[in-house]
Amino acid sequence: MLFAKHQDILDNAVKASHDRTFYAQYPEHPKAYGEEAPQSGEAAFKSQLGQPFQRLLQDSDNWQGEEVSPYTLEPLGVSYPIVPADALVMSAKAAGGAWAKLPVTERAAILTETLEVIKGHFFEIAYATMHTTGQSYMMSFQASGPHANDRALEAIAMGYRELQRYPEQLTWEKPMGKASIVLEKHFRAIPKGVGLVIGCSTFPVWNSLPGIYADLVTGNPVLVKPHPKAVLPIAIVVAAIQQVLQQNGLDPLLCQLAADTSEHLNTKALCEHPEVALIDYTGGSSFGNYIEQLPCKTVFTEKAGVNSVIIDSADNMDAVAQNLAFSVSLYSGQMCTAPQNFFIPERLYDEVAGKIRDAVSALVANPKMGPGTLGAVQSEVTVLRAQSARSLGAGVLLVGGPVTNDEFAKARTCSPTILEVNAADKDVYARELFGPVILLVRTNDTAESIRLAKEIARQHGAITCGAYTTDPAVRAQIEEEMNSVFTPVSFNFTGFIWVNQHAAFSDFHVTGGNPAGNASFTNPEFILKRFVWIGNRMQIS
Amino acid sequence: MLFAKHQDILDNAVKASHDRTFYAQYPEHPKAYGEEAPQSGEAAFKSQLGQPFQRLLQDSDNWQGEEVSPYTLEPLGVSYPIVPADALVMSAKAAGGAWAKLPVTERAAILTETLEVIKGHFFEIAYATMHTTGQSYMMSFQASGPHANDRALEAIAMGYRELQRYPEQLTWEKPMGKASIVLEKHFRAIPKGVGLVIGCSTFPVWNSLPGIYADLVTGNPVLVKPHPKAVLPIAIVVAAIQQVLQQNGLDPLLCQLAADTSEHLNTKALCEHPEVALIDYTGGSSFGNYIEQLPCKTVFTEKAGVNSVIIDSADNMDAVAQNLAFSVSLYSGQMCTAPQNFFIPERLYDEVAGKIRDAVSALVANPKMGPGTLGAVQSEVTVLRAQSARSLGAGVLLVGGPVTNDEFAKARTCSPTILEVNAADKDVYARELFGPVILLVRTNDTAESIRLAKEIARQHGAITCGAYTTDPAVRAQIEEEMNSVFTPVSFNFTGFIWVNQHAAFSDFHVTGGNPAGNASFTNPEFILKRFVWIGNRMQIS
Repeated sequence: MLFAKHQDILDNAVKASHDRTFYAQYPEHPKAYGEEAPQSGEAAFKSQLGQPFQRLLQDSDNWQGEEVSPYTLEPLGVSYPIVPADALVMSAKAAGGAWAKLPVTERAAILTETLEVIKGHFFEIAYATMHTTGQSYMMSFQASGPHANDRALEAIAMGYRELQRYPEQLTWEKPMGKASIVLEKHFRAIPKGVGLVIGCSTFPVWNSLPGIYADLVTGNPVLVKPHPKAVLPIAIVVAAIQQVLQQNGLDPLLCQLAADTSEHLNTKALCEHPEVALIDYTGGSSFGNYIEQLPCKTVFTEKAGVNSVIIDSADNMDAVAQNLAFSVSLYSGQMCTAPQNFFIPERLYDEVAGKIRDAVSALVANPKMGPGTLGAVQSEVTVLRAQSARSLGAGVLLVGGPVTNDEFAKARTCSPTILEVNAADKDVYARELFGPVILLVRTNDTAESIRLAKEIARQHGAITCGAYTTDPAVRAQIEEEMNSVFTPVSFNFTGFIWVNQHAAFSDFHVTGGNPAGNASFTNPEFILKRFVWIGNRMQIS
Repeated sequence: MLFAKHQDILDNAVKASHDRTFYAQYPEHPKAYGEEAPQSGEAAFKSQLGQPFQRLLQDSDNWQGEEVSPYTLEPLGVSYPIVPADALVMSAKAAGGAWAKLPVTERAAILTETLEVIKGHFFEIAYATMHTTGQSYMMSFQASGPHANDRALEAIAMGYRELQRYPEQLTWEKPMGKASIVLEKHFRAIPKGVGLVIGCSTFPVWNSLPGIYADLVTGNPVLVKPHPKAVLPIAIVVAAIQQVLQQNGLDPLLCQLAADTSEHLNTKALCEHPEVALIDYTGGSSFGNYIEQLPCKTVFTEKAGVNSVIIDSADNMDAVAQNLAFSVSLYSGQMCTAPQNFFIPERLYDEVAGKIRDAVSALVANPKMGPGTLGAVQSEVTVLRAQSARSLGAGVLLVGGPVTNDEFAKARTCSPTILEVNAADKDVYARELFGPVILLVRTNDTAESIRLAKEIARQHGAITCGAYTTDPAVRAQIEEEMNSVFTPVSFNFTGFIWVNQHAAFSDFHVTGGNPAGNASFTNPEFILKRFVWIGNRMQIS
């Protein structure tokens, strides 16, 4: 079947995910996809507006949709089939049997083929992402397109490798003096059961693809449950997967969209369904903690964290401030990797605080840079949170607010608010303030900065930690302390590289070791927990 | 340090654990260890009786012991240092730092060295096992000696491999037009924290060594909490590990005996200690379920299961009956792998039931075979359970009872009781009856046998399933159905191979997929869940 076509891609991806020196199967520059692609993607997106999304190979007599563009504040008017949890699970189970029996090489090849089909929709997905999440055009394209596909390929490659770890069949001989006992052994990787992937409203594709592909490559059917405000981007992906499955003679309901509505959420019904064995979740900590404590489920969570930046010393503090200004402004602080708390020692405080304030102000006010970096804010709640942060009792160094977007006059925008606190004000800064709010924390010295950043990561979780130091001993200490609470550190980033970014095939995303989540894209566990190794034995003499 | 000495062993063990064709580093025949070894082992055991166990490099002002030999019914009189949970955990944490910093190659080599030292105690451990668990001399030697060491080496090898999966350091370059972004990346495997290994009274060494070595090779300190009635065998092991650690300039408290008493158990205090991150547990389901639901712990359980044998057809039913008679008699049914329920279709029922009864009767009555196969019963509770099984309402085909042991007149012995039930009598057979009790279940046909065995494995868990069939289609069906509830199947075992045995480097022990336990010796997850991969990045241009 498809394996011969994709074997090189898979072998290269396996190698790359172990070398970790970088490997992008899908170029991140829009230009690599042809001159016509952006326009036809936009046209496809526009023609879908106001229409039922009929590309899925699944049906329902109940169609609903409630997406609203953060750029126009207009409803998209797209509706999706709403299918009850039981029916979704039954279809998934029925589709799973034949899929589980395919060799992993074939499954991996078919899944790689789906990525090729998805590639043809990158620009349509980009517009859909932009007008559901509020991401900028460029981030929408990259995060939901090539970067997501690369993360998916990474998961496929890990499955392709791990399911071939042991021989399918072997002869085992135990000498017993004159004779031998001879057994034939069969090693089988049995998929755990129906998978459920619960998406979030800010990264509906990037955060969902690893779980979807990890479930599928290990032989499990998967239900894709999007946030009701960000369905279209992932619906396009699911439709493409279904199309490739059908073309290969497989049941397309192996991968189903499990759309619901804010009024009638189906998340708990799906999570608690006895046939749902695997749950991937991205979202808030409280629902994530509920999922983690469900008995008899294998769960992979990415919840909230409080990310820190530790500033000790730098050769060029202006370059540091510019880099950080971009990190905190990018998508208006709505990335799970965005820094929130900046620990600055007393000796540097006034200088660094001033530079960060100036750099953020300049970036936001720059009409060529500001609107495209900030994008729009996905939810009104996030804007309100940013506004109310001013009354937390902290000093206000910079007041964030609406930023004019020339293309979208009604866009829901909000630039970063910068608050100032002392190390003692933990009630203010030792919690997640999702969105465009950052806190500068004045500390006695770097030792105190490290202690506080570590304590917060241990208690509240952290996905990233940025640090700036010219002293190798301090660097080693920061790495040691933050790693001990399972938080990775990015040192001395300036220029065109930001702590927010995690590259497929090189960086793990979330470690799984602190309260920010129990899983990691894509470490071996992310794949191995989805199936069970079983050895059968038959005596042949 | 030690790595050069042990590199070949480690490389071979890694290869063997992936080939799975068999590999025993430690010969299972007592004769391989020299003529003097058994006697000096026995002498060492006897000289310990009635004495405090002072070989451990840990101290206490509270020494306790309550072991009683199932063979003599006399107390061993050995006492062990009792250390409060907090003190154990603090010492473990203190010892962990330097250990975590060693390269995995050095850790693996030091641990392999500990196995060599333990080898010198195999016979002492055998006598200690015999007089705590009631295992026969030969099983005590093999299970607590070479087989346990092989399982330990398997865990070391998996850690040695997995911790070297990613490069420690690499340069990552992202072309950005004219210039490049260049990062140096460090990948580190961070140990999760203090490990706790909770042993059982029947296999105090074999079931504990995989967790102990898995914790240690991944850089974690470990507390070894034995069952208070079976301390000595694992105390000898812990002392040997401490000795090697000290000889290599490491803190011996990296591995501590966490002995307690039946009156003052420390298990829950240890499990719930916030610094205990990893728990390995072997024992009953109810405590196992408690451990599995503890928040924020990584747990590996082996709980109870109900193992089935499905009899469909055989060329030589006498050979089948003899094989099964041995399986159910071995250590008086106290192995977690021993079969309990025998599903026999109506058409074969009378023939097969008669042959099994006759084979068990003959084995038990054979003075050269019976006592040595049955061994002794670890706990009086198990004997009472076997006796009361006769009044469960099932037919009684064979009444088990004491068997004369010429060497130990007072030995607590009990031969298998064979009960007969119909398929409908699930209230009798659909639960674990630990010890020398088996149930023959009369079914309509093999399809019903499979359905029932599958249902029980799903609901109550199963570690093994034996099956006999000459029909390849039936064989495929049994494999498919039992594998779907994550239970491995052993087909057509006759002669000197039994469903109870799982060979290191070839068979997984427990799949982790059904209620019999959530972990497996030694699949990759057994190692990977004990540490966290973290990638740190530093910009260098």
